[in-house]
Amino acid sequence: MTIQSELSVKPHDRLQAALTEDLAQVNALIRERMASEHAPRIPEVTAHLVDAGGKRVRPMLTLAAAGICGYGGLYHVHLAATVEFIHTATLLHDDVVDESEQRRGRPSANLLWDNQSSVLVGDYLFARAFQLMTEPERMDVLRVLSNAAATIAEGEVLQLTAAQNLATTEETYLKVVRGKTAALFSAATEVGAMIADAPEAVQRAFFEYGDALGISFQIADDILDFGGVSAQTGKNIGDDFRERKLTLPLIKAIAKADEEERTFWKRTIEKGDQQEGDLQTCLGLLTKYGALEEARSEAFDWSAKAKAALDAVPEHEMKTMLSDLADYVVARIN
Amino acid sequence: MTIQSELSVKPHDRLQAALTEDLAQVNALIRERMASEHAPRIPEVTAHLVDAGGKRVRPMLTLAAAGICGYGGLYHVHLAATVEFIHTATLLHDDVVDESEQRRGRPSANLLWDNQSSVLVGDYLFARAFQLMTEPERMDVLRVLSNAAATIAEGEVLQLTAAQNLATTEETYLKVVRGKTAALFSAATEVGAMIADAPEAVQRAFFEYGDALGISFQIADDILDFGGVSAQTGKNIGDDFRERKLTLPLIKAIAKADEEERTFWKRTIEKGDQQEGDLQTCLGLLTKYGALEEARSEAFDWSAKAKAALDAVPEHEMKTMLSDLADYVVARIN
Repeated sequence: MTIQSELSVKPHDRLQAALTEDLAQVNALIRERMASEHAPRIPEVTAHLVDAGGKRVRPMLTLAAAGICGYGGLYHVHLAATVEFIHTATLLHDDVVDESEQRRGRPSANLLWDNQSSVLVGDYLFARAFQLMTEPERMDVLRVLSNAAATIAEGEVLQLTAAQNLATTEETYLKVVRGKTAALFSAATEVGAMIADAPEAVQRAFFEYGDALGISFQIADDILDFGGVSAQTGKNIGDDFRERKLTLPLIKAIAKADEEERTFWKRTIEKGDQQEGDLQTCLGLLTKYGALEEARSEAFDWSAKAKAALDAVPEHEMKTMLSDLADYVVARIN
Repeated sequence: MTIQSELSVKPHDRLQAALTEDLAQVNALIRERMASEHAPRIPEVTAHLVDAGGKRVRPMLTLAAAGICGYGGLYHVHLAATVEFIHTATLLHDDVVDESEQRRGRPSANLLWDNQSSVLVGDYLFARAFQLMTEPERMDVLRVLSNAAATIAEGEVLQLTAAQNLATTEETYLKVVRGKTAALFSAATEVGAMIADAPEAVQRAFFEYGDALGISFQIADDILDFGGVSAQTGKNIGDDFRERKLTLPLIKAIAKADEEERTFWKRTIEKGDQQEGDLQTCLGLLTKYGALEEARSEAFDWSAKAKAALDAVPEHEMKTMLSDLADYVVARIN
């Protein structure tokens, strides 16, 4: 393990350690609220996902923001659980939409049960999230979280309709990313500051941190799907290309394509007629136009924006961890 | 047209006439809020459903309850639109779950677009519903509507897992019906009274009216699926039998089955091995045990309960229409 990657593993674990007690309460609340007296299928499906873990990044963001702002109440736990319920519900629906067979290293719920269960249990979790978020009786928090839910769904629909469309712009990509990733990150941090009654400038700073962190995280993920900038990782490379998803590196290379290359993109992305060697050609074109390098530089810009937003946030040991987390998401593509 | 059916057409039309202005505002708000700046697929799918009409029963219930309670504000329109958004979202998801090909006499959205669009646009409408319902800034209203959303989803999951299970009881059937139909009816009427700050007993009465009306409506629907008590209607009879849905008449006949009949139910419902003539056998068994008659009598009991609940409600021309509406839902099976 290099020094770089060792450093970069730390912020998440350090946050988890700092939030141990809060996280235990969040997990207990999730377990309590995912129960259903009448329909045992619900906790079965949900437990499958919840037990598989995931890193609980989003609820940690809420808890950390509330903690940094000196919140002394109990409702940060409700909000953290709300955020995780919304996230879990979108995962269930995403797997139906993408016809996924795996999630968090296990067979996906739509495969283990059926699409019907995934759709309806996802709906149940959305509804439970809305019940949970009414409990602190804070209209401002409700507005932020219901707006986030709408932005997420809008982003997902936009992604669906933009798929396979070579005319997709970087602007559209950013809207999709804000919807599918950044909206829940920014809502998670913002409501943490809100419930603590932090000054408006601090709430705004937490929103901006979550927004920029989410965008940086998603661009890095999309780069890693092509094996990273120097293609060291090498596992499952090219899923997005095979699924014809127009992520930032592809959009950049397609925008610069000459006529012959355009024919290639039309065949592989628009028509979905992919043959052996096409992924290699694709990677070659990404390199030719420096598309991965350019995307990487944008991911770093967003990471820097996330850290800069924290300037307005009170000093706290967890503030350093959030700043390091912003470094960590791009350290993966360094 | 018989006198019976002529009388029975009236309450809905009379409500619509009494609520013309309110309904125009609801429709305008629905159109405004189903728009999406970024994802044009959303209004396309939604307009397909919304334009197909439907009878707007649920929003009318909210508007009528608010009107009867003397509400003078503007938020009954928001709540009526919220209720219709939740209803439309569940229709989109139901059609995916049931693999339906028709809805309101048109091809269903999952057929015209795809399951993905139906799932994600449904999610978008749920989120928009939650945004809308935060606008009156009433925590009590939010609690009722988010509870209803959870009950709906729970009922749908329960229906999914109870399907094809011969051990399904009338108690389970009632839970499913409360979830899939009555929960939104009762929430619709209750929040109408709530936004008008009606006394608690009146709010409770409106809840009970909506609950009983919804149950009566669903039992009547399930009877009509077998062609009604005297089997006059004759179109599309037996869909529930073919889809192996354990509705009240079937549950009653199965509970009384002798050994030979049990073998029939096991083959047709549990295993889904249906042959020509099976529907006739099924109808014969329903008649043998008076299952449709018994179910019909329960539908009438619930209709009477709905009307009785209105005793606690202030006098108003629309109160008579609501009472007549409860008669109408069972007049269909008279």
